[in-house]
Amino acid sequence: MNGSQVPSTTVRRLPSYLQALLSAQVHRQSVVNSLQIAEMVGSNAAQVRKDLSYLGEYGTRGVGYDVDALVAHLIRWLGIEEHRNVAIVGFGRLGSALQGYAGFAERGFRVVAVLDDDPDKIGRPFDGHVVQAIGDVEEIFSAANVDIAVLAVPAAVAQSVTDAIVAAGVKAILNFAPTRVEVPDDVVVRHADVAAELQVLAFHLSSLERRAND
Amino acid sequence: MNGSQVPSTTVRRLPSYLQALLSAQVHRQSVVNSLQIAEMVGSNAAQVRKDLSYLGEYGTRGVGYDVDALVAHLIRWLGIEEHRNVAIVGFGRLGSALQGYAGFAERGFRVVAVLDDDPDKIGRPFDGHVVQAIGDVEEIFSAANVDIAVLAVPAAVAQSVTDAIVAAGVKAILNFAPTRVEVPDDVVVRHADVAAELQVLAFHLSSLERRAND
Repeated sequence: MNGSQVPSTTVRRLPSYLQALLSAQVHRQSVVNSLQIAEMVGSNAAQVRKDLSYLGEYGTRGVGYDVDALVAHLIRWLGIEEHRNVAIVGFGRLGSALQGYAGFAERGFRVVAVLDDDPDKIGRPFDGHVVQAIGDVEEIFSAANVDIAVLAVPAAVAQSVTDAIVAAGVKAILNFAPTRVEVPDDVVVRHADVAAELQVLAFHLSSLERRAND
Repeated sequence: MNGSQVPSTTVRRLPSYLQALLSAQVHRQSVVNSLQIAEMVGSNAAQVRKDLSYLGEYGTRGVGYDVDALVAHLIRWLGIEEHRNVAIVGFGRLGSALQGYAGFAERGFRVVAVLDDDPDKIGRPFDGHVVQAIGDVEEIFSAANVDIAVLAVPAAVAQSVTDAIVAAGVKAILNFAPTRVEVPDDVVVRHADVAAELQVLAFHLSSLERRAND
């Protein structure tokens, strides 16, 4: 089966299933059922079964899923059997926080380059990485085999830096700039919109308050 | 209509529609159709129409949506007519980056408190906020009327800090710690899982590579 046939909503849930299964492995569970996975990720069993059915037959009715087999399959499916190389572009406070983010290495990602355009930062080492110039992005990305660029620059320059990243041949961008960026059809952008997360929470708060006032 | 009747997948898309409509306002468009909104958010017109239909009748067939009316309605619906008060709990690199995040104020959020448990940080001012002690969370949240807590502490203490936040009466948490946290049923947690975003991108890369090798 081709990855493009899996619905994008399912793809977005796969990392949380992988997390749940890794947690089951840590607790030495060899089999989990869809209800247990659902409880770990805050979903329901029918949704879990439907999502996992896109990946093939890894469950046994009435028994559950073989944890090790499903973990191996999800890792292969998510394309993280081998480490993916990540570059942090924009080394302000957010970029520096992301570079030190503890969750990356254990989840299959390796920060191989950090870039900025501030002459005071370029050439200085931070946590084992020397900050390199955004102007040299093509050479840097090519030398470091960058798979994914994490964009942590101000909104005003997000599009021009994105254009440079795309010109350097990177096909996947995680955008933390508080603005949308345009890319060609063969490049995938995820927009890590922190304020949007807060808006979703605000919506839930309003719902709670409406119910409390009913 | 009660907010709880809107599907959660739709709720997650509402902030991006609001962003698109605010962008249309900036460009002095008074009417936009579902296709234009879809293009701005990277969706399709049918999905946009279906999502917005949950909010009531704001579109005119063959014409489009009244931008100002729909913006006002989305803002009301998302519960951000008034600023929501946000506390940053954990003032390491990520907490400090989040505190300075440019997207908050313009999207209806105000950082009213920052907390940490490091004696070297407590009592020191950063960008207009004096860092306060996590141990005083109940008094601080009550005094500052905190609506949403942003959790930016290490994974090892995420659950105990969450318990303290919940005990302080906060009903909405945005969790940046690279681990899941448990909360009572009346508290909403969004898990801002940066590594999961990278895993989704890795999956798309694998799909691209599979197609290129076909």
